[in-house]
This record gives sequence, structure tokens and C-alpha cells, in this order.
Amino acid sequence: MSIVRVHSLSVSLDGFATGEGQSLEAPFGHAGTRLLEWALGTRTFQGNIHGGTGGSRGVDEAYASTWTENVGAEIMGRNKFGPQRGPWTDEEWKGWWGDDPVFRVPVFVLTHHPRPPIELGGGTTFHFLDATPDEALEAARAAAGGKDVRIGGGPTTVRSFLEADLVDHMHVALVPIVLGRGVRLWDGLEGLEERFAIEAVSSPSGATHLTFERRPRADA
Amino acid sequence: MSIVRVHSLSVSLDGFATGEGQSLEAPFGHAGTRLLEWALGTRTFQGNIHGGTGGSRGVDEAYASTWTENVGAEIMGRNKFGPQRGPWTDEEWKGWWGDDPVFRVPVFVLTHHPRPPIELGGGTTFHFLDATPDEALEAARAAAGGKDVRIGGGPTTVRSFLEADLVDHMHVALVPIVLGRGVRLWDGLEGLEERFAIEAVSSPSGATHLTFERRPRADA
Repeated sequence: MSIVRVHSLSVSLDGFATGEGQSLEAPFGHAGTRLLEWALGTRTFQGNIHGGTGGSRGVDEAYASTWTENVGAEIMGRNKFGPQRGPWTDEEWKGWWGDDPVFRVPVFVLTHHPRPPIELGGGTTFHFLDATPDEALEAARAAAGGKDVRIGGGPTTVRSFLEADLVDHMHVALVPIVLGRGVRLWDGLEGLEERFAIEAVSSPSGATHLTFERRPRADA
Repeated sequence: MSIVRVHSLSVSLDGFATGEGQSLEAPFGHAGTRLLEWALGTRTFQGNIHGGTGGSRGVDEAYASTWTENVGAEIMGRNKFGPQRGPWTDEEWKGWWGDDPVFRVPVFVLTHHPRPPIELGGGTTFHFLDATPDEALEAARAAAGGKDVRIGGGPTTVRSFLEADLVDHMHVALVPIVLGRGVRLWDGLEGLEERFAIEAVSSPSGATHLTFERRPRADA
């Protein structure tokens, strides 16, 4: 059965999953790369970013490596796709990831300003949808060929899928920094733990990996 | 040298160290005992609460057990001492801990409404101070006989000592629940990690123990 998954979502001690002031030069705003330090050295990220074959194989990699396995489509928020806000002034922007993005599956970008799809190399096509989480999930499932759907972030998008109770598995990397400002993940999710079995594993990198596994539904 | 320490301060994923709606029946408000589950079964808490000799000896106990070692005085906020607010309507209240409190050292309660000291059994005397963190620390150090001073909480008090850069060691237990409301620990502490070396260790109980060790001061 196709499930809905979140992977490698990094969150500060004060619950921010991205900083304040996103721009072309600063995709995570004032947070810089601090939320991602645990991941940057892993084999998965080294391969995705640099096309290299190096990188660590420890516990951080064990978590990072699971993000593509059996994933047939991704849903992301517009702020993950780019720093623009409001109507598109041009359609040149194709995301942060160049002509051969790491996704290699259909990607559904949630935006109130839809535009034509962008087909890039390696199997990545960006589709733009003005849709609720339920509607977006229906579209992504149809494109995923029976595989799972990944909610790719950012925090506003993940939160909206958690609020709609559509997430089956979530991996959060808790990073021991205090960001102070940005976009919070946990707002409006009081009692989230009642819906999930949660496991915590600390890494020598300083990050703590939390996995949330959806408990069986009462009506299942 | 006498240092300033925080122990067993439990915090939710969304950064709350106590819930909303404290009352005589609910010292932690709507949080109930959920933030303390990791600690309740330990040998230290079993001994403190019930005077018993049972309890666990695993990693949770390893952290819980360090809270009294070489501590000569505690500073706490008024909301840790009791649920009353504003001027005292009577002076009957002696804290939540009965006639033989677990502290066994002088305890300085920060309040804008000072009252005469209360001397109880086992070495615990409650002193009431309307003071800044610096002033309170001076009084506690004078009473501690060369030993360390513990900042006992709650979150507002710990935060005020962190803001004043007076904390040398801090143990936080991160509990994988989303409280949604209450009193936050991390507000106003952006960049706290620059002042501390931080270590994270997850426990089978689900809690993750974070220790913050003050880095040497630039002027030291």
C-alpha cells in the first residue's frame, strides 16, 4: 500500500525548520546550513549534491539514505521551490537544483499561482497546483505508480499534511541549536504524539533522529 | 570553584517546559506528568518522592542522579514554589513538598512579594527574594558553603539565568510530545549553542538527554 512519508526534516530546539529571510543567496534564511550539518557529510547528500561517491556511512547516513526508497512522487511547498512570492514575474526559475534535479520523480509544487509544468532531466517534472493537502495527495498518488508519496517540505507544507492527518511516517532530525526566528514546525499540532509511535536515536554528529510511525487508525 | 547548574529540566518538542493552567491540583497545568515520565521510575525520583529504595538504574537514572551532588543551594521561581499569584493572601503555603522537602539545602524563591523564611525539616529553608538573577546568585552562593548553586526552574527562571549568562552546566530532557501551550524555555535565546558544548543521548524511555557545558569565556 502506498503511504505518505516525510524525510530528513531538520528542526531546531525551538522548533524552527527554516530561518527568517529566505532569498536567492540564502534558501534557509538566517539559518544558513546549520540545520543540515548532520546531513551534508553523508554518502546520500554527497552523491545528490556533488554526484560523488564519498561520504559517511554512520547513523546519519542510515537515516538520510531512506528518503528515495520506494518514493514515486513528491509534494513540496512553493517556498521550498524558490524564494519568489506572489505572482510569477517570469517563468525562468526552475528550482534550486539545476537541470538534473535530485528528485527523479514527478514533483507537485503547492502554490496559489499555478504555471505550466517544467520537465527536467532524470525524470523530474515540476507540476504546479493550487490545491488542498487532500487534493494534492490525490494527484501525487496518481502519478506515483503505486509507490509512496514524499512530503518534501518546508515546514508549512509538512504541518498542513500533519494537521490533515495524512502522514504515515516522518523522520525529523532535531538539531541542538536555538534559531530564535523562522518558520515553526510544531505550531497547531498539540497532542501529535497520540497519533504516532515515536523513537529517538542520537547521533555523534549532535543531531537526534526522531521517527514517527502512524499508529493504526481506530477505524481501520 | 562553585558553578551554576540546571538539572532534569524537561522540555517538549515545541519547547514548553510546563503546561498552561497551573493549579493546586495540576502543578504542570495541562501537561500533567507527561514531561516527567522518563524520570518518575528512576531510583532518584522514587527515593525522593516515596522515600523508597527501588527504581531504575539505566541512562535516565544516570542523568537524574546528578542533581544533588555538590549542590549547596537552589534558586527557584515562585511558580515552582506554588500556584498562587500576586500578594500572598496567607502564609500557610509551604511548597508542594511537605514538611521534609527533597532539597535539604537553602532554597531561594524569586518573587516580587517577599515573606519571612520558612525553615522545614532535613535542612531545607525557603528564603523569599525580590532580586535580579545576579543578586539572587550572590545570596545563594553565600549560603552554599563553597558548593554549587542549582537553578531549579521553572522555565522562566532558567531562561532569565541563561539570558544573564550565569549558567555553567544544564541538563535538559527533551520529551517527544507536542504540548501546544504553556511556558517556553528557548524564547529569546537565539544562538545559545555558541556559548555551550552540547551533547545528546537518547534513552529507551523516549527522552533525549541534552547536556550543555559552558565554553571557556573569552575573557577567562
